[in-house]
Amino acid sequence: MVEEVSTSRSDALDDTGYPDAVVDLLGVLAYGELQAFERLVSDAVLAPDLDSRAAIDGMAVGEFGHFILLRDRLTSLGVDPSYAMEPFTEALDAFHASTAPADWLEGLVKAYVGDGIGADFYREVAAYVDPRTRELVEHVCADLGHSSFVIETVRAAIEADPAVAGRLALWARRLVGEALAQAQRVAAEHEALVELLVEGGEGGASLAEIGRMLARITDNHAARMNALGLSP
Amino acid sequence: MVEEVSTSRSDALDDTGYPDAVVDLLGVLAYGELQAFERLVSDAVLAPDLDSRAAIDGMAVGEFGHFILLRDRLTSLGVDPSYAMEPFTEALDAFHASTAPADWLEGLVKAYVGDGIGADFYREVAAYVDPRTRELVEHVCADLGHSSFVIETVRAAIEADPAVAGRLALWARRLVGEALAQAQRVAAEHEALVELLVEGGEGGASLAEIGRMLARITDNHAARMNALGLSP
Repeated sequence: MVEEVSTSRSDALDDTGYPDAVVDLLGVLAYGELQAFERLVSDAVLAPDLDSRAAIDGMAVGEFGHFILLRDRLTSLGVDPSYAMEPFTEALDAFHASTAPADWLEGLVKAYVGDGIGADFYREVAAYVDPRTRELVEHVCADLGHSSFVIETVRAAIEADPAVAGRLALWARRLVGEALAQAQRVAAEHEALVELLVEGGEGGASLAEIGRMLARITDNHAARMNALGLSP
Repeated sequence: MVEEVSTSRSDALDDTGYPDAVVDLLGVLAYGELQAFERLVSDAVLAPDLDSRAAIDGMAVGEFGHFILLRDRLTSLGVDPSYAMEPFTEALDAFHASTAPADWLEGLVKAYVGDGIGADFYREVAAYVDPRTRELVEHVCADLGHSSFVIETVRAAIEADPAVAGRLALWARRLVGEALAQAQRVAAEHEALVELLVEGGEGGASLAEIGRMLARITDNHAARMNALGLSP
């Protein structure tokens, strides 16, 4: 707890003059990384052996490092990180509560596919904020760093038992559905984030640009599913 | 999984000539840190606010750093870390299963008092191993690094509600009891660790030295309880 920062959300914004949307973006991303860290660690017990378990824990620790970067950025903007994160805890907690993996493979697919979509979305939004924030968001989202372990493990599981592919593809679809449901909820409750996309930056994104953005996110998702050996 | 290392425990020991007890010490400590990391993260959700939750997560990440150091040391000795840890998973899992904290304060006391006793014990055993192993064990055990946060939080809770002190003191006694029960189990199953204490180093510890060791561990435990404002 840093004593000097503002103690209420709106004060913080008034004091700093930082756009609501930047604080929202950093806040949702920071809480997302903290949650991803904790969920990944709690899913690590599903691992079939100690090596895999330690690998998942190591991936999780990477997410915690991202959280620290985002939290420190909020603090340096004079914004209390907890106040920036608080508005997003419910939606992100709801996403994780509704997508608790039933086994090790579901946990891996969630880490790879779920985090991938999240990162794509945050990167798209970051195109409309100041360069320093954008750089930080891109750094955090680029460094997922756990793709090869996940890809190898999931592909090996499918090779050993091809029926696994259908089950995991369904699971990934459910993940996307739940993520979209929560994203819509966040959008409904946080106008600033939506306005950033529609009106932000150099006049904001046109409807055509938003269409292209959704197409890019969908394409990237399909590429990740293919990498795992799953039909999108 | 490192391919070059031995694939069975006894092979590893035969190949390297490293005493069983050193591998046991590094193995139990490595798994202890991995477990402490995961348990601390799962207890973090008990935190009353996001700042405290992130503080606990940060403490946990420190434990994961220790795990990595210990795992790498085992690998550099030519020992498969999983084979070194495996014999201790049951006893350590049983300890954590029987001491799941019911609330935030119990979690903090467990992290401070439980880890403290463990660290004291490992340090005492390390007096009888080679200097490089001893140095690593002392580094890992010295760097608990979370004492001031825990002490301040527990003392503030007792100040706000003095009845808390009695409940937490009982909880700490249960932790010690469960830890001793599992330590006895480990000792019964791992002669090499016991022999290290009794016969290791410069002729090993005499009975008088073992008595002094237990007195030191007890004294340190009492000092930690006092620091928290609890009667030992």
